[in-house]
Amino acid sequence: MDKRRKIIIDCDPGHDDAVAIMLAARNPKLELLGITTVRGNQTLEKVTRNALNICQYLNIDVPVCKGLADAIVRPSLPTEERVHGDSGLDGPIFPPLTKELDSRHAVDFIIETVLNSDDNVTLVPTGPLSNIAMAIKREPRILEKIDEIVLMGGSYQHGNVTPAAEFNIMADAEAAYVVFHCGRPVVMMGLDLTRQALCYPEIVERMSHVKTTGGKLFVDLMKFFCMTQKRTFGWEGGPLHDPTTIAYLIDPTCMEVKEMYTEIDISGGCSHGRTNCDVFHLSDKPMNSKVAMKLDVEKFWDIVEDNLKRYDSL
Amino acid sequence: MDKRRKIIIDCDPGHDDAVAIMLAARNPKLELLGITTVRGNQTLEKVTRNALNICQYLNIDVPVCKGLADAIVRPSLPTEERVHGDSGLDGPIFPPLTKELDSRHAVDFIIETVLNSDDNVTLVPTGPLSNIAMAIKREPRILEKIDEIVLMGGSYQHGNVTPAAEFNIMADAEAAYVVFHCGRPVVMMGLDLTRQALCYPEIVERMSHVKTTGGKLFVDLMKFFCMTQKRTFGWEGGPLHDPTTIAYLIDPTCMEVKEMYTEIDISGGCSHGRTNCDVFHLSDKPMNSKVAMKLDVEKFWDIVEDNLKRYDSL
Amino acid sequence: MDKRRKIIIDCDPGHDDAVAIMLAARNPKLELLGITTVRGNQTLEKVTRNALNICQYLNIDVPVCKGLADAIVRPSLPTEERVHGDSGLDGPIFPPLTKELDSRHAVDFIIETVLNSDDNVTLVPTGPLSNIAMAIKREPRILEKIDEIVLMGGSYQHGNVTPAAEFNIMADAEAAYVVFHCGRPVVMMGLDLTRQALCYPEIVERMSHVKTTGGKLFVDLMKFFCMTQKRTFGWEGGPLHDPTTIAYLIDPTCMEVKEMYTEIDISGGCSHGRTNCDVFHLSDKPMNSKVAMKLDVEKFWDIVEDNLKRYDSL
Amino acid sequence: MDKRRKIIIDCDPGHDDAVAIMLAARNPKLELLGITTVRGNQTLEKVTRNALNICQYLNIDVPVCKGLADAIVRPSLPTEERVHGDSGLDGPIFPPLTKELDSRHAVDFIIETVLNSDDNVTLVPTGPLSNIAMAIKREPRILEKIDEIVLMGGSYQHGNVTPAAEFNIMADAEAAYVVFHCGRPVVMMGLDLTRQALCYPEIVERMSHVKTTGGKLFVDLMKFFCMTQKRTFGWEGGPLHDPTTIAYLIDPTCMEVKEMYTEIDISGGCSHGRTNCDVFHLSDKPMNSKVAMKLDVEKFWDIVEDNLKRYDSL
Repeated sequence: MDKRRKIIIDCDPGHDDAVAIMLAARNPKLELLGITTVRGNQTLEKVTRNALNICQYLNIDVPVCKGLADAIVRPSLPTEERVHGDSGLDGPIFPPLTKELDSRHAVDFIIETVLNSDDNVTLVPTGPLSNIAMAIKREPRILEKIDEIVLMGGSYQHGNVTPAAEFNIMADAEAAYVVFHCGRPVVMMGLDLTRQALCYPEIVERMSHVKTTGGKLFVDLMKFFCMTQKRTFGWEGGPLHDPTTIAYLIDPTCMEVKEMYTEIDISGGCSHGRTNCDVFHLSDKPMNSKVAMKLDVEKFWDIVEDNLKRYDSL
Repeated sequence: MDKRRKIIIDCDPGHDDAVAIMLAARNPKLELLGITTVRGNQTLEKVTRNALNICQYLNIDVPVCKGLADAIVRPSLPTEERVHGDSGLDGPIFPPLTKELDSRHAVDFIIETVLNSDDNVTLVPTGPLSNIAMAIKREPRILEKIDEIVLMGGSYQHGNVTPAAEFNIMADAEAAYVVFHCGRPVVMMGLDLTRQALCYPEIVERMSHVKTTGGKLFVDLMKFFCMTQKRTFGWEGGPLHDPTTIAYLIDPTCMEVKEMYTEIDISGGCSHGRTNCDVFHLSDKPMNSKVAMKLDVEKFWDIVEDNLKRYDSL
Repeated sequence: MDKRRKIIIDCDPGHDDAVAIMLAARNPKLELLGITTVRGNQTLEKVTRNALNICQYLNIDVPVCKGLADAIVRPSLPTEERVHGDSGLDGPIFPPLTKELDSRHAVDFIIETVLNSDDNVTLVPTGPLSNIAMAIKREPRILEKIDEIVLMGGSYQHGNVTPAAEFNIMADAEAAYVVFHCGRPVVMMGLDLTRQALCYPEIVERMSHVKTTGGKLFVDLMKFFCMTQKRTFGWEGGPLHDPTTIAYLIDPTCMEVKEMYTEIDISGGCSHGRTNCDVFHLSDKPMNSKVAMKLDVEKFWDIVEDNLKRYDSL
Repeated sequence: MDKRRKIIIDCDPGHDDAVAIMLAARNPKLELLGITTVRGNQTLEKVTRNALNICQYLNIDVPVCKGLADAIVRPSLPTEERVHGDSGLDGPIFPPLTKELDSRHAVDFIIETVLNSDDNVTLVPTGPLSNIAMAIKREPRILEKIDEIVLMGGSYQHGNVTPAAEFNIMADAEAAYVVFHCGRPVVMMGLDLTRQALCYPEIVERMSHVKTTGGKLFVDLMKFFCMTQKRTFGWEGGPLHDPTTIAYLIDPTCMEVKEMYTEIDISGGCSHGRTNCDVFHLSDKPMNSKVAMKLDVEKFWDIVEDNLKRYDSL
């Protein structure tokens, strides 16, 4: 029998981070070793609380470790209230929180877990890359035990916080620079891909028939998310960015990826935070990334539905 | 009766520059005041010779003025032999050149012509923007008499010389910075648009039925161009970048353009030369450009065919 | 007999520019071919008027040509009212202006004069380098006839408009980049040198005994200049930046210069406009500049006095 | 009675780092809480071994903790064999090493020690700032308990690895950016100051009369150091950079410092790694640094001699 692929999700929940966790935690192909948090969509305190709430609500019994409250070099970007609300995960009502934070710092947890694992570990960052970058620099010996870094971030076309840059990369471009140039393969779910994972009202309706805690949480989250996407950007459906990472791990055939060299702009100029993906192989630098190009949208939503069903019946 | 729109084509021919000239010179809506040349696809000497050859072959009786041999600040990019051949316009065989260069420098010609024109003038740069930038800085009074600057260059998705940057902008990013921030409206035909104007063998076949000097020159040029596109990039059909500027001037309904703010990266970093087009209006800076988004491909080729027919019968 | 060295002064007068012109115009070793103006200390209109006033007042019969009103790429720096007053040359009272501007543009004048000169010409820029850079790019054939470019600008220690950058270079860093990398030798009078040429009240007193129009103009200028230096920076004596260029040309032994590689920062970052002078030869790039290190202060003031005496008696 | 000032030395020994440790460890005004190491003058392994050797040789009983092997973002600079030899501390012959490394990572040691200390702690970095920056970002609560950061690095005049940048800052400019902008006061011993602390042969001769283990180690170190300074740079005496930090802590009257705003260049351009010290208060940004300007050379060497004497007699 195939072994389950060991993963750590490093995130800033965030509605789409929450769905990523949901897809991963019960899937038989994946073994979720823990969840680490990083400032991004909301402050570190809030996103950590959100991660704990998600785990408690869905009975996901893994350590949740708090990480960096700030980017590793420059001042942090403002948080994304417009999209995720004041709590960072507005929408669902959670019961009183009893699940406790793991006492280890996220950076230590990542280092210990990777070093002590029998198998290689896949890192799945769905927020700014501050924790991952610090772990790599703090203990470079983890590199040889990192299978892949499957991340949500960047764009080979246009950004969403500036014309050049996407939020997760812009929020800590220097950290992204460390990760993309660390020597381990990066799989990048950029906006080009995630903007194909649009959660329209029809999708919410479809998932409302999944009568599990997972289904319910998805619906509660997405109703809020669709509303803010419409209010903020004028879009009917919002892109469900982060879960594409887990969908790829569950079934890589649900998207086309292309191997290429990607460079991170840390110039401080008007393109700061851009992921310059060499789609046409213009340079001869060694490839360091697989960039997701095209989503099989149907397959993607099947994966989402399938994995929501794995939770407890309502 | 409508007045013809006065234009100056500033170019570095170049196969697609040649087609741009062909479309413009006989069109009854346009009045071609002159052609100025700039180093780009090939050295200044070669592109100037090419411009003269095109005019002589097609009986286009306008001044041709030689401009800058170099970018206005940084060293120039290498020329594009791979695409345009050793002469910069390989393919057709031209008769001995008798048409003479106008003695005025391109920068002076632009300044004088714009200042002395009764009507406003539209500048149509299809190469690096060195001449235009220098004219603007040398004589800022031309600005109020420039109608629009309809240029080929840039990209809001990915580049063609680096992942970030397109050739014409990269070749003189500082000049592009001057032009995009000069206060006059820029209409930008970026790679996003021009990659929709693909000249496949079927197009060459179609135009081969236009039995004029224009039709013949088009066919001779495009056979070579398609061959190098295939050899260099592996593509069946090459994008006919520059003529989209003239197509837009003849019939703006042949494409969708969107108004937005565009910023030029002159940081010297890995995104140097990028046109950061604010497609989603993320910043609140005043719009300075109309960026072409979607080409009506059929209309475009009809415009090409229609204007090739205006030349002398073979 | 030795031939006189042909020079063009490109300036933005400015009190210290005025003194530079005074030292040059009557000196038997130099032949002043003309004066060109550029926006810097004040607007182009004002500095041009100042240049004409100086020439008329001192009977200096050379062409004065107006140049660029703006930096060649980025927006211009604010002008320096604090130092030079509202006119850019506050202090002296000039008679009504009758001397006329030469009709040629500064860039054209430089190109024509250099190309048509029998001997090589030395350019002496004492303002931002916009005109010189544009002339070089517009007509690169002038390069081989440029003897040296002896300029005031930059600093190998600290700047005066930012910690990194000096005014003339910061005001048009891209132009400075062109000049320092043009292949002709640059002699740089940076702040390190010019801050040794401090015009204390004793100096003004000393020159007040020179009973010529030159002496009088010097005194009128320097009284105002010393006052604003004190008011703006709290210094007793102000650095007489620009005349050091002419002093060097009259008698190079009045200072120590050191040959080295100098690179101009055009990154747009916090060191934009810095002249990175490789004083210790840390890199192996070919030397492109002689940087003035140490002024023989006594000799310098002797040169000033000596040349003020050459003007008409009062 | 005055309390001793608690310090942690974060270093990359290195000859001058060694002398800094020597001055600090026995001085009654200072309480050395520990020594942390960072890659810089030599690899992390070598500089850590050197720190242990120094402590063992001089009977300095404090924890030595190993830190970062690399800069926090960009690739590291090459090490400085030319100056410090293959071991990073060539010259003295040390007995077999028995002193053991503390098991804590430098970053953890700094965080724990600062958080657990009754009094505030002064950090004394004499190498690249990687450990300090990571500690600050990892645990920002240490900031309020950091008294000052008294570091060797930077320059307000010229650099020593590039014309713009000094080695320690250039080696990890992003870390320096974090430290200078962390909100705690930085005291900067730049090259401008340390180049006044020249260790000429006379100084070595003078210290050879200090008949202690400290005196002997100083002489053994400095003989090698003076030799490489002469060979590499052609200088008779080498600047004893790092000990100026400790001299300042022992007796701040041994130098003049000036408070000002300092900004770190992390543009990636030709001034990357520069410390732009606003000596003339050109900007109105809040002051974040005291920059050492002038050394009382006599006092400095007296401090050195005085503290070498505190070690065991030979």
